[in-house]
Amino acid sequence: MPQLYLIRHGIAADRNPQTYPDDRQRPLTDAGVKKTRKIAKRLAELGLQFDHLLTSPLIRAQQTADILHNAKLSPQPEIFPALAPCGPIQDWLNWYNTLPKTSKNGDVAIAVVGHEPDLGQWAEQLIWGEVREKLIVKKAGVIGVNLPDDGEIIGQSTLFWLVPPRFLL
Amino acid sequence: MPQLYLIRHGIAADRNPQTYPDDRQRPLTDAGVKKTRKIAKRLAELGLQFDHLLTSPLIRAQQTADILHNAKLSPQPEIFPALAPCGPIQDWLNWYNTLPKTSKNGDVAIAVVGHEPDLGQWAEQLIWGEVREKLIVKKAGVIGVNLPDDGEIIGQSTLFWLVPPRFLL
Repeated sequence: MPQLYLIRHGIAADRNPQTYPDDRQRPLTDAGVKKTRKIAKRLAELGLQFDHLLTSPLIRAQQTADILHNAKLSPQPEIFPALAPCGPIQDWLNWYNTLPKTSKNGDVAIAVVGHEPDLGQWAEQLIWGEVREKLIVKKAGVIGVNLPDDGEIIGQSTLFWLVPPRFLL
Repeated sequence: MPQLYLIRHGIAADRNPQTYPDDRQRPLTDAGVKKTRKIAKRLAELGLQFDHLLTSPLIRAQQTADILHNAKLSPQPEIFPALAPCGPIQDWLNWYNTLPKTSKNGDVAIAVVGHEPDLGQWAEQLIWGEVREKLIVKKAGVIGVNLPDDGEIIGQSTLFWLVPPRFLL
């Protein structure tokens, strides 16, 4: 079964229109980098290996993806514009539909780094086919979804993992 | 916010009408005991502390609860008949409604040891108000649900944790 890991970016600098007039440039804090590195190390210890790592174009997400890549969890991250806040899930679905569903490791494993509330809503769409905002996804938290082997994935996927960052440190 | 941890019993002996004419007597295997102990140790390392530990009356669940208790996660387990397979959630709701929602540790934390598909269905009822069987709960897996501070809990709770046992070893 293909697996999708939805990973929220780590702790970033506070929103501040004077320091960061463009919110997309807001970086991870030093503590955010450190914590995200620890989490990436733990994910690697758990045996995770992603065949694809897509990231939101926002700096805080790209930095998070780089940390995952540097922990040898994945190949080079690929910037995916639709992972920006409020991006259209349909773009990702189109990408996914053309993707081979197996890799050298077996069933394909995909990680995406993005934002809340998008990631939780997206997981809910995959699992329940509708959004109710009932999944709690903290910064650097992870959601693991099993996608069906074929056919429609919206409303047909299952949840196998949801983890707050404090349980990955 | 009160927290509810739904914990599935560990790996038990195979169903066998000759060895275990009464399925309720089926115990954990030696490997199941060992693995469940490792998981209990990990839960304690993560800082979990349950104010109440309720268990299904079936032997495999009671053994699992004893292991959690022995790892200093909880007071003595309390046998709760409605946690047997297909038991009525209403009995637990009635118990919960009379329970003080705070403890010496702050908001009350309750763990229940039971069976599938009941635990996953019950979590779905708390979170989404309906059952869709989309949560994967392996043996010795854990679901963590935040219950609202007051009022109705069915369909009003949130999911903060769902973990397969392999990520707790």
